Amino acid sequence: MDIMQSSLEKHYEWKGKIEVVSRCTVENSSQLSLAYTPGVAQPCLEIQKNPDLSYDLTRRANLVAVITDGSAVLGLGDIGPRASMPVMEGKCALFKEFAGVDAFPLCVNTQDVDEFVRTVELISYSFGGINLEDISAPRCFEIEQKLKERCDIPVFHDDQHGTAIVASAAMLNAAKLCGKDFKDMTLVINGAGAAGCAIAKQFISLGMGDIILVDKDGIICDGDEFSNPSHYDMAKVTNKTHRKGLLADAMKGADAFIGVSRPKLVTPEMIQSMAEKPIVFAMANPTPEIMPDEAKAAGAYIVGTGRSDFPNQINNVVAFPGVFKGALAVRAKDINEDMKRAASIAIASAVPADKLTPDFILPNSFDKNVANIVAEAVAEAARKSGIARI
Amino acid sequence: MDIMQSSLEKHYEWKGKIEVVSRCTVENSSQLSLAYTPGVAQPCLEIQKNPDLSYDLTRRANLVAVITDGSAVLGLGDIGPRASMPVMEGKCALFKEFAGVDAFPLCVNTQDVDEFVRTVELISYSFGGINLEDISAPRCFEIEQKLKERCDIPVFHDDQHGTAIVASAAMLNAAKLCGKDFKDMTLVINGAGAAGCAIAKQFISLGMGDIILVDKDGIICDGDEFSNPSHYDMAKVTNKTHRKGLLADAMKGADAFIGVSRPKLVTPEMIQSMAEKPIVFAMANPTPEIMPDEAKAAGAYIVGTGRSDFPNQINNVVAFPGVFKGALAVRAKDINEDMKRAASIAIASAVPADKLTPDFILPNSFDKNVANIVAEAVAEAARKSGIARI
Repeated sequence: MDIMQSSLEKHYEWKGKIEVVSRCTVENSSQLSLAYTPGVAQPCLEIQKNPDLSYDLTRRANLVAVITDGSAVLGLGDIGPRASMPVMEGKCALFKEFAGVDAFPLCVNTQDVDEFVRTVELISYSFGGINLEDISAPRCFEIEQKLKERCDIPVFHDDQHGTAIVASAAMLNAAKLCGKDFKDMTLVINGAGAAGCAIAKQFISLGMGDIILVDKDGIICDGDEFSNPSHYDMAKVTNKTHRKGLLADAMKGADAFIGVSRPKLVTPEMIQSMAEKPIVFAMANPTPEIMPDEAKAAGAYIVGTGRSDFPNQINNVVAFPGVFKGALAVRAKDINEDMKRAASIAIASAVPADKLTPDFILPNSFDKNVANIVAEAVAEAARKSGIARI
Repeated sequence: MDIMQSSLEKHYEWKGKIEVVSRCTVENSSQLSLAYTPGVAQPCLEIQKNPDLSYDLTRRANLVAVITDGSAVLGLGDIGPRASMPVMEGKCALFKEFAGVDAFPLCVNTQDVDEFVRTVELISYSFGGINLEDISAPRCFEIEQKLKERCDIPVFHDDQHGTAIVASAAMLNAAKLCGKDFKDMTLVINGAGAAGCAIAKQFISLGMGDIILVDKDGIICDGDEFSNPSHYDMAKVTNKTHRKGLLADAMKGADAFIGVSRPKLVTPEMIQSMAEKPIVFAMANPTPEIMPDEAKAAGAYIVGTGRSDFPNQINNVVAFPGVFKGALAVRAKDINEDMKRAASIAIASAVPADKLTPDFILPNSFDKNVANIVAEAVAEAARKSGIARI
């Protein structure tokens, strides 16, 4: 039986991949009077006096909302709120399994940016953090931006930042193996949607020499006209040498390639045109921009994909659980650039230097200690940047 | 140490009274591919084709949202969304402990009716039912009404209907003990807010002979002017003999009294003025409208209160867990009058006829079999009234 059919059967069996349980026993009236009326009035009054006590007296301190509008789910596209829920529940299960973070899935039945933002803003006091998921570009940028301004808890669009953190962690170790320094490198990113733009920003923040963003119309270059408004900003901070042309032109002489685009867009010739020891992260799912064996045959020194059946799986699961665990640990008001950078470096450092090989540049996805390493680094970065509450 | 202080300490210990856990194990890549990508795409696609499968393939079928705006919390009043969360979490714990129903607490940070309604409506696909809680009158009526119109899942304001179901269940058994029939009885309800009006409607639906609603300005009588707009409707269906005056006037000759008002409003003289074998439910919390010993001394035949330290505690916990369990079991689209009436009768029937005494008219609050009895009756009523999906 194939994985799709097996998964469907398991979903019928699970009847939901998450469950809400009680942390208190209520079997007699004295227990009831502690957990509920009349005793519960006291924690209520304490929070009324000092709203920050909501972190101590309710589940909020360990609780993330995983929120979508169902507009860009996996590779499936705009399948709507109800159909997106198996993915959201899966994400919540991963939060708990990998970092002990409680996560609750919510789908919001609107694609109007302001209505979505207002809905999430109004329920944000119920949570310690908000993980936005599978929202289509360019709406996801505006939604995240507005929610960051209006909420006093971390708001994090995982499709952008989780992907960027893991890809840059992998690149830190790959560059190390190649004896290259970010500041001297040129990175081509193919696909300039939510993930591609976030990856570019993360690499800028980590000091990448130059980045060439390519989308379906070719290389993004300052001065051009763009249909996606966020590309005007991206053009200003990438492509320092004003390269023009298509993907093949961008690849010439580049040190590294990251694909968050579509299957089979990269040819062996493109790999051959790159600089020495090319690094190729072909992350299109389920079929990469170029298959690993083909890339290697064309000279790629290090190859990563999004898949678990090849070496170097670039998987968000090593990032988001620890990122939120760290942010929640210090009750951070936001997840900022410093925290994301700290997460990348921490993930890279989770592979011991003496274990690093071209086929082992990221920690195992199932090494559940990674979340702790990431959480500590993220918490520390939050403290240093002054957005920690404790 | 008093109960308030003990409860506060327990809340610091609990760090939240509910927890979100994972129902699937994710420890290797084959498990990950079933619970998350790529396998999860299949249940998503199935729900996209048939949205009703969201009940089979996600947690929705057993999941209720407990939602408040923090405007009328316990006896504390408008303490705001964050401060209300210990109560909402407590309610969620009770749902799980008493009926195995998953419940998740949400506070919404607005007191604008339309904004609140729109927020809840937009997230309603994430749940199988919505329990509204601690929302002030008259906003709660409009909110519930609008949500019932816009959501295809049950919406139930427990402060109204849960209270009405339990009070009427208690009255069914009390009337039986007194040898009286609802159709021949007159019931005085003191307090014409959300609970009082809902209690009146529930008794009308159960065939009570006449009801006299009294609020702080006296008896509600058709033709009067009211500041609360819902009182115009109530006046049309209560007080058939157009009684005028204050509480003492209403009580003369009445068979039963229900107080959802304030402490110590009922005097022994008022009890003495009632018909034979008076039934007195003095439900103001924590101090009843009249203390049980005082009411008994004045001739009350059966006395109930909201308190666990007197006989006949009239406690919502025997209603809402079973009501939602039954509604969820048949994926009801609503909780309608038939279902509420069925719940009252089922709760009353949970006390065996040979055990019924003036001090034992309701099942024990901690008899966790009551939820099953109520659930079966509610599910059956939903099926009969044609609003069950399965």
